[in-house]
Amino acid sequence: MTSASVVGGSGFTGGELLRLLAGHPEFEIQQTTSREYANKTVGSVHPNLRGLDLRFVAPDSLDPVDVLFVCVPHGVTMEHIAEYRDLADTVVDLSADFRLPDAELYDTWYDGHVAPEHLADAEYALPELNRENLPGADLIASGGCNATSTMLGLLPLVEAGLLTPDDRVVADVKVGSSEGGAGGGVASSHPERSGVVRPYAPTTHRHEAEIEAYLDLQVSFTVHAVEMIRGSAATCHVYPSELPATKDMWSAFREQYGDEPFVRLVAGGGGVYRYPEPKAVAGSNYAEVGFELDERNDRIVVFSAIDNMMKGSAGQAVHAANVALGFEETAGLEFTGLHPVGSP
Amino acid sequence: MTSASVVGGSGFTGGELLRLLAGHPEFEIQQTTSREYANKTVGSVHPNLRGLDLRFVAPDSLDPVDVLFVCVPHGVTMEHIAEYRDLADTVVDLSADFRLPDAELYDTWYDGHVAPEHLADAEYALPELNRENLPGADLIASGGCNATSTMLGLLPLVEAGLLTPDDRVVADVKVGSSEGGAGGGVASSHPERSGVVRPYAPTTHRHEAEIEAYLDLQVSFTVHAVEMIRGSAATCHVYPSELPATKDMWSAFREQYGDEPFVRLVAGGGGVYRYPEPKAVAGSNYAEVGFELDERNDRIVVFSAIDNMMKGSAGQAVHAANVALGFEETAGLEFTGLHPVGSP
Amino acid sequence: MTSASVVGGSGFTGGELLRLLAGHPEFEIQQTTSREYANKTVGSVHPNLRGLDLRFVAPDSLDPVDVLFVCVPHGVTMEHIAEYRDLADTVVDLSADFRLPDAELYDTWYDGHVAPEHLADAEYALPELNRENLPGADLIASGGCNATSTMLGLLPLVEAGLLTPDDRVVADVKVGSSEGGAGGGVASSHPERSGVVRPYAPTTHRHEAEIEAYLDLQVSFTVHAVEMIRGSAATCHVYPSELPATKDMWSAFREQYGDEPFVRLVAGGGGVYRYPEPKAVAGSNYAEVGFELDERNDRIVVFSAIDNMMKGSAGQAVHAANVALGFEETAGLEFTGLHPVGSP
Amino acid sequence: MTSASVVGGSGFTGGELLRLLAGHPEFEIQQTTSREYANKTVGSVHPNLRGLDLRFVAPDSLDPVDVLFVCVPHGVTMEHIAEYRDLADTVVDLSADFRLPDAELYDTWYDGHVAPEHLADAEYALPELNRENLPGADLIASGGCNATSTMLGLLPLVEAGLLTPDDRVVADVKVGSSEGGAGGGVASSHPERSGVVRPYAPTTHRHEAEIEAYLDLQVSFTVHAVEMIRGSAATCHVYPSELPATKDMWSAFREQYGDEPFVRLVAGGGGVYRYPEPKAVAGSNYAEVGFELDERNDRIVVFSAIDNMMKGSAGQAVHAANVALGFEETAGLEFTGLHPVGSP
Repeated sequence: MTSASVVGGSGFTGGELLRLLAGHPEFEIQQTTSREYANKTVGSVHPNLRGLDLRFVAPDSLDPVDVLFVCVPHGVTMEHIAEYRDLADTVVDLSADFRLPDAELYDTWYDGHVAPEHLADAEYALPELNRENLPGADLIASGGCNATSTMLGLLPLVEAGLLTPDDRVVADVKVGSSEGGAGGGVASSHPERSGVVRPYAPTTHRHEAEIEAYLDLQVSFTVHAVEMIRGSAATCHVYPSELPATKDMWSAFREQYGDEPFVRLVAGGGGVYRYPEPKAVAGSNYAEVGFELDERNDRIVVFSAIDNMMKGSAGQAVHAANVALGFEETAGLEFTGLHPVGSP
Repeated sequence: MTSASVVGGSGFTGGELLRLLAGHPEFEIQQTTSREYANKTVGSVHPNLRGLDLRFVAPDSLDPVDVLFVCVPHGVTMEHIAEYRDLADTVVDLSADFRLPDAELYDTWYDGHVAPEHLADAEYALPELNRENLPGADLIASGGCNATSTMLGLLPLVEAGLLTPDDRVVADVKVGSSEGGAGGGVASSHPERSGVVRPYAPTTHRHEAEIEAYLDLQVSFTVHAVEMIRGSAATCHVYPSELPATKDMWSAFREQYGDEPFVRLVAGGGGVYRYPEPKAVAGSNYAEVGFELDERNDRIVVFSAIDNMMKGSAGQAVHAANVALGFEETAGLEFTGLHPVGSP
Repeated sequence: MTSASVVGGSGFTGGELLRLLAGHPEFEIQQTTSREYANKTVGSVHPNLRGLDLRFVAPDSLDPVDVLFVCVPHGVTMEHIAEYRDLADTVVDLSADFRLPDAELYDTWYDGHVAPEHLADAEYALPELNRENLPGADLIASGGCNATSTMLGLLPLVEAGLLTPDDRVVADVKVGSSEGGAGGGVASSHPERSGVVRPYAPTTHRHEAEIEAYLDLQVSFTVHAVEMIRGSAATCHVYPSELPATKDMWSAFREQYGDEPFVRLVAGGGGVYRYPEPKAVAGSNYAEVGFELDERNDRIVVFSAIDNMMKGSAGQAVHAANVALGFEETAGLEFTGLHPVGSP
Repeated sequence: MTSASVVGGSGFTGGELLRLLAGHPEFEIQQTTSREYANKTVGSVHPNLRGLDLRFVAPDSLDPVDVLFVCVPHGVTMEHIAEYRDLADTVVDLSADFRLPDAELYDTWYDGHVAPEHLADAEYALPELNRENLPGADLIASGGCNATSTMLGLLPLVEAGLLTPDDRVVADVKVGSSEGGAGGGVASSHPERSGVVRPYAPTTHRHEAEIEAYLDLQVSFTVHAVEMIRGSAATCHVYPSELPATKDMWSAFREQYGDEPFVRLVAGGGGVYRYPEPKAVAGSNYAEVGFELDERNDRIVVFSAIDNMMKGSAGQAVHAANVALGFEETAGLEFTGLHPVGSP
C-alpha cells in the first residue's frame, strides 16, 4: 500500500479526498491535519465518514509519507511547498498556487508568487489534457473546477482545429455552493444563498487564466452561483470562422474522448437527460460533454458538466495521482453517481 | 369598476392574474374559466386564493366583459380570437399567438397562424418597449418571459446606440420550473427536475424571434432550466464595435429607465445582492438590470432578472392593461417581493 | 399618519417589518436603526426594498415616535425597555423578553430577567388568543413563531373542551432557515443547511413555555429544521380522553376561527393542497389549520402552518398594532401569498 | 458469479438495484425488464448508468436466473409470483405484496391478496430484524422505507424491554419525493412539490401494519413530504411506563447495533450533525439512529434516518440477498455517502 496524508482535511475538498482515499485499493491514509479540529474524529466534521477510525492532527505533526495531498487556501501551499516536498515523494496540490505555468501569469491574476522556483516542476493534473506528463511527476497541481469544466468542453474543438485562438468564445458557467468552501459567511448563509441565480464573477474570474494558458484561447468567462451544492456546468458559445458539420463535431469529440474512462459524450437522444447535467454526474468523477450547432447564428453551443468536488478537485487529484504512480486510472473512482438525486 | 374575466384560470399564469385582479383597485373579477375544474373554487387549485369567493366556469359560459385576459396554450387563442374580441372591448392575450408582428415571422418560428388578420391590431404589452402604443389598444399581446428579461437588459444599449445590429450578442438565460406550466410530466417531476442545470433550449428558442422583431438584433439565445420555480435571469454577453465608457453605460441605463416604475438599476455596490437576481424580485413586477464591462475581452456583460410569472407574463399583462385603460400604472402591482425568500 | 420606527432593521424580521410598514395605509416609517449598516440604504441589505428611500441610523439616534417596533436579540430589549417606552406610546417587541407572563417562568426557560417590572404591562400579541386585551396596550410582545403555529392548531380544541390539561400532546414542528436569523455561521451555511431534516431542538425548546403559559397545556415539543426559508408547520398528535366526532371537530374550529381574518380551515377536500402547508401561506399573514381523526389510535392529528416571518413575527406584530391602535385589522397585511412558490 | 435480473428496471428502485448490482463483486446482471423502454439502454433512463452496456427487455423475455429482483407496483408481484419463483432460485420482491406475515393482515391494509399460499415462504428482508431467517431464503420481501426507518429507531427499545406494547408511540416521519416513484403527476411536479412540508398520510399509512406485525407495537404513524429527493427520517415520541436512565438507553442501542455494519449511533456530540439526518446517509446503505430523553415530559425522542432508495429498498434488498446467499454482508454496499450533499 502507498501511504497518503491530507493537509487540510476538514474542508470540503479535504473531506472528499479522505473519502476517496479510504475506499482506494492502493492508498492507505496515514494522517490528516486540521488546526481547528485537531484530535477530533474526521467523522465529527464529515458525517459520511463517521465509520472512519481517524482523527485530525495538528499541522505541525505531519510525518513523512509517500503522497501528500494539500487542501489549503490559495497562497498557503506555496509558503510551505519546500517543506511538503521534503516530506513526500509526490505532492498533489489542490489550490491555485501551482496551476499556472509561470510566475508572471500568476502575478497578473493572483498576488505575488512566493515560490516561483517550484513552478517549472508542477504538472497540471487534468489527465484528459496532460496525461503524458503525469507519470512520475512529483508535484501535481489540480485544476480549477470551472476551468476544468470549460476546458473539457472546448478541448475537442481545439484539438480538431475547429476552434482557433482568434475565434470568439463565451463561457457562461453555473456553479454550486460547495465552491465557496466550508467557512460560512452571510452571502453563503442558507436564506441568502438558496434559490439564487447570482452573478458572482461577471468578469476577470481567475480560472480564465488557466484556460488561456492551457488551451491557448481567449475566453470571455462569467460565473453564476445557482441552487446546487455540487456541480460546475459550462455552456460555451463558440463562433468559429466556419461552422463545422455535425459529423465533424462528433468526430472531434469521439477522437478526443473515445478512450477516456471518465468522459461521457451526451448530445441529444431522447429522455429527460439529453445534454450534460451536473445532476447526472453528482458524486462521481465523470464529466459529461455535448454540443449543438446553431446554424442561424453560426454558433457552436458546447455543454459540459462535472461535480466540482470530484472531477473539479478531489477526484481529479486522485485520478492524476493514479496516473502518476502507475495505478489503474479508475482506482478508487468507480462510483457512478445516483439517480434520482437532488441539488447535487 | 372595470369588469375582467380570465380564460384559463387554472394554470399558473391564470392563477397569478386572478391574484392580481383580486387585489386591483380598478378591476372586478367577473368570471374565470377552466374546462377541468368547472364549478370548483379557485382556491382548490390555487391555495393562496382560498379566501376568494370565486368558482371556475366552463369555457362556453363566458359572458361579455370589459377586459378579457386569455391564458391558454399557444395556438388556442388564435382559434377563438374573433369570439373573444366580440365579448370584450379589450383582449389581453398571454400566449405567443399575437406577439410577433406578422404572420410570416410567426410561421417561421411556430406553426401556421390561423387568424393573421388580427395581427396588425395587436400591441406588444411590455410598457418599457411599447408604452406609447398601448393607450386604447384593444388587443394586447403579453411578451414571452425570456424575451422580456433579455430585452430589458439590451434595450438601453440599443436605444443609446451602444449596440447595433451587426454586433455579436449571446443571451444565456436561466429559468424556473413554472415556465413549464401546471401540467406535470416526467421531465418536470420533482425528482428529475430538482437541482438541475439543464439545457432545455440550446438553440432556436422561439423567444429569439421576439427579440429580433422588437430590438432589431440577432441574438444567440440559449435557455437553461435551473433550480427555482419563479424567475428568468438573462446574462447577455455583448461585443460592441467599441467598448463604451462606464459612465456612458450608466447614462444609457438611467436615460432608459430613470422614470420607469418597475425597473431597478443594480450594478455593483456592496452587500450580498450586487447584481440583478431573480430572488430579489420574486413575486413582484419589478425587473432588475445591471452590467459590468470586461475590458480584457471587449465585452459588456448585461444582467437582467424578472419573475417570469409577473414581469414575464401576468404582471406585464396587468401593467399593459393599466396603461391601455388609463389607470395608475402601478395599480395592483405594488408588492415589492420578500427578503429572504427561497427558490423564488 | 401614525409614525413608526424599527429598532434593528437590518435583521430578517426587521426587514419584514419595514416592508409591511412601507405598504401600510396608516403608518409612516420614521427611522430604523442598525449598528452595522448605519447610513446605508435599507435596500442595500433587503434587496426587495431597494425602492425605499430610507437609510439606517445608529441606535443612539432614535427619536420619539408613536410606535416603536423592536427587533433585537433575546435579552437586549429588556435592557432598554424603559428607554423605549419613554420614546414611544406603544412598544411592540419581537423578542422573547416580554412574552412570558411572569419573571419566574422566564428565568426557568431563559436567563434572568432584568426588567421584570414591565412584564405585567405586556400583552401577548397574537390576536386570535388575546384580541380583547390589545386595544390601547402600550407594550406588546409578539409571540414565538413555533409557539404561534402550535397554539393556533390547538386553541380550538382547548376552547371547545376537547383537549384538557391532562391529555397527552406531541408537537412535532418543522421550520425554515430564516428562524436562524441573518447572521450566517457554519451550521446555517448553504452546503450544510440545504436539504436537511435536522432535529435542532429535540427537547426543552423554549417555545414550550409559551404554550404552557397561554394554553395551560403540557406539550411535548420537538423542532426540526427542514429545507425551506420561511415557514413553521406544526403537527400536533393529540390523545384526548375521548375521541370527538368529526362534526364536533369542525364545530370547534369554525367556532374559533369563523370570523378570524387570517386563519383558514383546510382539511381534506381534493387537489394537491389538502392540508395546511407553509407554501400556501408563504409571504402572507395567513395561518392554515386542519385536522384528521385517527380512530385506530384514538388520536387527533392537527396541522397548522404559518410563515414564521409573518404570522410568526412581523405580521403578527403589525396585526397586533392594528388592533391596539384601532386600525382596520387587515391593514397592510392583505397580501395573499403566491402560487406556485418554492421553498417558501 | 451469481446471475441476477431485475424486473421493472426503469423505475427508481429498479435503477438503484441495477447500479448496486453493476458494482457488486458477486453478481452479474443478466437482464432487466421494462415494458415502456424495451430495447432502450438503461442509461437512457438512468443517466448515472450511461456507461452500462445493458438494454431493457420486454417483461415476457425473462430467462431463468439465479436471483430475481422484482420492482413492480404493489399488487403486481403477487399476480406473477409463481412464474417468478419458477424462473429463479431466489426472488427478492421490493413491493408490499409479501411484507406482511399473513393474508388477513394484508387484506386489512391493502386489497385482497391473490397469492396467499406464498406468504408463509416469505422472509422479511431487514437483516437487523430478521438476519437469522435469511440464509437460504427463496422468497424475500424488502420492507417499506418508512417502516424501516421507524423500526430501526424503536427496535433497541423493544428488545431491551424499555418499550412495551401498551406504551404510547408517535412516529412522525418526513420523506423525500423519490417515494412517489418515477411517474410524474401534478402533485409531484416540481412547482407543486418543491419546498413543501405536506402531510400526505396523516393517518392509516400502510407501513403502520408492518411495524405492528414485526415489533408488536401500536404506533401512531404520520408521514410528511418534505423537500428532499432521497430520505426517510422518523422521529418517534415514546412514552414508556418509566423513563429509562441515559446509560440504559445507550446500552440498549449499543447492544442492538454494536455489530451491525450499516447502523450508526449518533446522539449529541458537537458539530453540525449531532443527530441522525438523511443528508448524512444519502446514497448509502447506512442508517443513523439516536435519541434524547425529555424528563420534563417523560418522553424518549428517537431519531432515525435512512436513504429510502437504499436502506429503505434497493440497498436493503441487496443486503438481504447477500445474507441469503452467504456473501459478505457489505458486498456492493460500501459507498459511504457524500459531504456536503444537497437535498439528498
